[in-house]
Amino acid sequence: MYGLARRLYPICRSISGNGVRETLAVLHELIPLEIHEVASGTPVFDWTVPKEWNIRDAYIKNSRGERVVDFQRSSLHVVNYSVPVRAKLRLPELRPHLHSLPEQPGWIPYRTSYYSESWGFCLAHKDLLTLSDDEYEVCIDSSLQPGSLSYGEYFIPGSTNEEVLIYTHTCHPSLANDNLSGIAVVTQLARLLAARGSRYSYRFVFGPGTIGSITWLSRNQERLQRIRHGLVVVLVGDPGPLTYKRSRYGDAEIDRVVQQVLRAGGRAHRIVDFSPYGYDERQFCSPGINLPLGRLTRTPNGEYPEYHTSADNLDLISPGTLAESFEACTQILNVLENNVRLRSTQPNCEPQLGKRGLYAKTGGGKEVGQREYALLWVLNLADGRHRLLDMLERSGLEPEPMYQASRALLEAGLLEIVPENEEKRI
Amino acid sequence: MYGLARRLYPICRSISGNGVRETLAVLHELIPLEIHEVASGTPVFDWTVPKEWNIRDAYIKNSRGERVVDFQRSSLHVVNYSVPVRAKLRLPELRPHLHSLPEQPGWIPYRTSYYSESWGFCLAHKDLLTLSDDEYEVCIDSSLQPGSLSYGEYFIPGSTNEEVLIYTHTCHPSLANDNLSGIAVVTQLARLLAARGSRYSYRFVFGPGTIGSITWLSRNQERLQRIRHGLVVVLVGDPGPLTYKRSRYGDAEIDRVVQQVLRAGGRAHRIVDFSPYGYDERQFCSPGINLPLGRLTRTPNGEYPEYHTSADNLDLISPGTLAESFEACTQILNVLENNVRLRSTQPNCEPQLGKRGLYAKTGGGKEVGQREYALLWVLNLADGRHRLLDMLERSGLEPEPMYQASRALLEAGLLEIVPENEEKRI
Amino acid sequence: MYGLARRLYPICRSISGNGVRETLAVLHELIPLEIHEVASGTPVFDWTVPKEWNIRDAYIKNSRGERVVDFQRSSLHVVNYSVPVRAKLRLPELRPHLHSLPEQPGWIPYRTSYYSESWGFCLAHKDLLTLSDDEYEVCIDSSLQPGSLSYGEYFIPGSTNEEVLIYTHTCHPSLANDNLSGIAVVTQLARLLAARGSRYSYRFVFGPGTIGSITWLSRNQERLQRIRHGLVVVLVGDPGPLTYKRSRYGDAEIDRVVQQVLRAGGRAHRIVDFSPYGYDERQFCSPGINLPLGRLTRTPNGEYPEYHTSADNLDLISPGTLAESFEACTQILNVLENNVRLRSTQPNCEPQLGKRGLYAKTGGGKEVGQREYALLWVLNLADGRHRLLDMLERSGLEPEPMYQASRALLEAGLLEIVPENEEKRI
Repeated sequence: MYGLARRLYPICRSISGNGVRETLAVLHELIPLEIHEVASGTPVFDWTVPKEWNIRDAYIKNSRGERVVDFQRSSLHVVNYSVPVRAKLRLPELRPHLHSLPEQPGWIPYRTSYYSESWGFCLAHKDLLTLSDDEYEVCIDSSLQPGSLSYGEYFIPGSTNEEVLIYTHTCHPSLANDNLSGIAVVTQLARLLAARGSRYSYRFVFGPGTIGSITWLSRNQERLQRIRHGLVVVLVGDPGPLTYKRSRYGDAEIDRVVQQVLRAGGRAHRIVDFSPYGYDERQFCSPGINLPLGRLTRTPNGEYPEYHTSADNLDLISPGTLAESFEACTQILNVLENNVRLRSTQPNCEPQLGKRGLYAKTGGGKEVGQREYALLWVLNLADGRHRLLDMLERSGLEPEPMYQASRALLEAGLLEIVPENEEKRI
Repeated sequence: MYGLARRLYPICRSISGNGVRETLAVLHELIPLEIHEVASGTPVFDWTVPKEWNIRDAYIKNSRGERVVDFQRSSLHVVNYSVPVRAKLRLPELRPHLHSLPEQPGWIPYRTSYYSESWGFCLAHKDLLTLSDDEYEVCIDSSLQPGSLSYGEYFIPGSTNEEVLIYTHTCHPSLANDNLSGIAVVTQLARLLAARGSRYSYRFVFGPGTIGSITWLSRNQERLQRIRHGLVVVLVGDPGPLTYKRSRYGDAEIDRVVQQVLRAGGRAHRIVDFSPYGYDERQFCSPGINLPLGRLTRTPNGEYPEYHTSADNLDLISPGTLAESFEACTQILNVLENNVRLRSTQPNCEPQLGKRGLYAKTGGGKEVGQREYALLWVLNLADGRHRLLDMLERSGLEPEPMYQASRALLEAGLLEIVPENEEKRI
Repeated sequence: MYGLARRLYPICRSISGNGVRETLAVLHELIPLEIHEVASGTPVFDWTVPKEWNIRDAYIKNSRGERVVDFQRSSLHVVNYSVPVRAKLRLPELRPHLHSLPEQPGWIPYRTSYYSESWGFCLAHKDLLTLSDDEYEVCIDSSLQPGSLSYGEYFIPGSTNEEVLIYTHTCHPSLANDNLSGIAVVTQLARLLAARGSRYSYRFVFGPGTIGSITWLSRNQERLQRIRHGLVVVLVGDPGPLTYKRSRYGDAEIDRVVQQVLRAGGRAHRIVDFSPYGYDERQFCSPGINLPLGRLTRTPNGEYPEYHTSADNLDLISPGTLAESFEACTQILNVLENNVRLRSTQPNCEPQLGKRGLYAKTGGGKEVGQREYALLWVLNLADGRHRLLDMLERSGLEPEPMYQASRALLEAGLLEIVPENEEKRI
């Protein structure tokens, strides 16, 4: 995953254009995703697909012809979606087009102007301070023209047509945590799921932030009713603890599942309530859409100093944090997949576990083992109404011993899975 | 408001009689309230309107003819509702009729005997200790005779006939916080509402404690179903923090609204649960009446040392505390008036605020402003089910920015108010 | 109660056999319980009533003919349900059959092997260490043959046929807290209830652990729907604080009642959630049975060092702790018996308590007494929906003043009890 992030790092992505296409092409080598192009001008709910932006070069030269700001050194140097410019300007005229971070003088900020035609450069504040009152040659060799917006989609059918939707954004240029980390983890997750069967169908969408999810939702309205759970997976490579932002419901199955997984093993983590600011969960959780979808990050947007600056580079993320995030995603999907209703075949009093070799033969000791305890909890709650998740929540036990207990009891014929359609009849 | 309290301070009020009439006449100069007289002997639920009490003079003279206790100096000196007395008594005979506060030797206590015919005097404990074993001339020039109980009522019609009821008690003699403070603030509130239109109709009642609310309720049973919210406003002039006592429901709309208002701005305040001891909320929240009505005070009854003593005088209250209490009441009514259901006209994904000038043009910054945040919250919750109060509770934002956001979105055509009758059809 | 425990202490009880019969015969001297015998081999749900076990003698003799382990000195020395043995064994052969507690070298452990035919001895670890590599004569003069399982049942009819079930286990040999304490307290409770009338019918069952409750449940399935509340009362003699384990429901009436009683008077206590490990509550709270039954102990099973060892002897329990446990049980049943719905006959506003002699005559004081406060709470909540328990929970007052207030108001005609069948019509 870290290798994929490293490979994608230099590409200048945006909400449209060839940088995104190049990124999706790399992903296509790993998973057979379908690439969609939506023409500029297409109405998508209250929005319109914007013109396509591409950039070849950009710089500011001083009067000695030296590039004092150079897009070739970092894709962050140009305000994303800047219109083409060729001009000679004195510093006072140029100054309003320059963005820097006085509180972090060594870092280049990341700025965008998607929906208002303008142009600008971003540079380290310490470099800004060295600019003298010179005449500068300014060049942004970009194009902003009718074209299309690109997103990738990969569908893995399961044994039912109920879907789990995973979304990650592809629009940021050379920023590692935001969001090459998300792209890498989600790609790996898709590879894992493609290699094994599943109860749910899975749909992975790689699209630009905001306009990407709006476009996808606008074109897939009839499909939304099949989506049972969703997750936006982004910013999962920094060293902060895993952080889950609840869905607008607050107590959806996905919210409860993630909470169980994150608290297992005593791992440091944070759970935060939904709020209408952040990433694409804003669109999936808008009042008319209102999907049960939460967001998994490590440190959330805006809460780490390197956020949206050149310091969000390949040093901020690591193979270990990516792996831990991937592992958490896998466990979340495992609980979702196993979250069935269970019913005891011997519901009156406890069944005699000893005669089936499931319980210690000598009695009188002080404590019961974790294995026996999990067996007793599963049996006690297996009244046909409780799902595995309910059992995890009530018992306080961790997912793994509870899976093992369920499997042992199913094999012993003491437990059966309640078919989902039977449940609906009740 | 402080001036009104000062003007009313010397009058000897009780649960009936000319002191109350004089008080209501002063209020009539400010608001056109209707004055009701209910004849002694009228049955009101389990009670009976008592005889009317009036007092002209009362004193205890020592053998030298000096008034050692003198009603003319403080209306508290006589036990309220004392029957007429003219007698010469030695100190041991007089002593059982004298009330003082040994723990506060300089203060005169306030005592009543409304429903048991007796007489007595209240005096500072230090003065009681100076009484020698003399013969005393005792005089209470009062009358307790069939008459009537007086209360004032002021109705301000709104655009609907759903009512908000505000009650404050008028029965205490020269006590400033209890309850000239309540009378002054409620009078001012009535003046404010009369001067502006409102959604709700408002009914203000100025009546004696306990028997006043019982009498009013007994005579207005058919009207109770129109009352949507109620507030007893009393003891609002002392320097303690504002304190709200919840209705018997505990989670009525008025309970939630007051909680939002009091916590705004980080203001010190207290919220306490309903209990069946206190002021007229006892009657409004009795099981057969059970109105959604809470009580706003500063320090509650019995919890400040000056309570029901001569130290509850004009020094205990101040223009500033009265103004703060009035302001809180105003904000409470503002939230009630604005607590409508809102529905987004663009519920699928976020509407594009930028093209309407409601959102910053350059993206990538770390934080969103309070103004934008309020816009996003209102839009996210505007699904036709949430009211403004729900939005305040869920967002944690304060009322003022949320009103502004709602207004801006209504003006931009992005929001509409759900008619109340449509809501009922759902 | 302590005397009864002392009398029963020497008897070697088990899940079947003459030790249990002898125990039940002693109880029969105190309460007229019915003794049931269920034949070995009878299927009871997923279990089968086991063969009957009886034991006359058991010992290990060394080569000098000395009894180094002797059942006559403690019934714990033999693994309960050991099959008959007569053999001469060297120490290495004998060793796997010996159980001791290295961490408590002076105490004999208690071990059982009910459902797996084997044999063994339990002894103090310090005695185990003194055994030399000798040849030992091993004798267990027991029998394990078809017979029957015995339990006692005592039914006290009340004015309704709704039942309260009290269960305590009888299967442990010479262990005082586990469970002669429970047997003694439950017997005394049965005597108390037999001596006074009650609203509920009460059913007391004295049976072996696990197989006893399974057998009883299997034979009384048609009766279960009458059981409104249940309590397992065991381990109630040690010095630890009273501990209540909630029913599987967690908020059943019995759960709420016990919580009220235990917190009254500021008494130290613990409330723990249901878990499927412990005593016979496991069976009563299995998914197919699911009775609203909790468990009252002092220190729960496994949580005190003397648990299931010879140190759980008559010194661990005391008359004082037994009396406190008994008193708590009595208070629990008192709240259950009194937990009726109450309705005010004067629900509109407060009734005038003063004219009925229920309220102080002089007004104006700072506080109301506990007696008046209880009267006001009962009246305020007496809307026909609240039961006494609801009133206790909401008012925070203790049971005794609330009973007194209810009685005074019933006598004054201000309150009436809502018939249970009327409630069902609502």
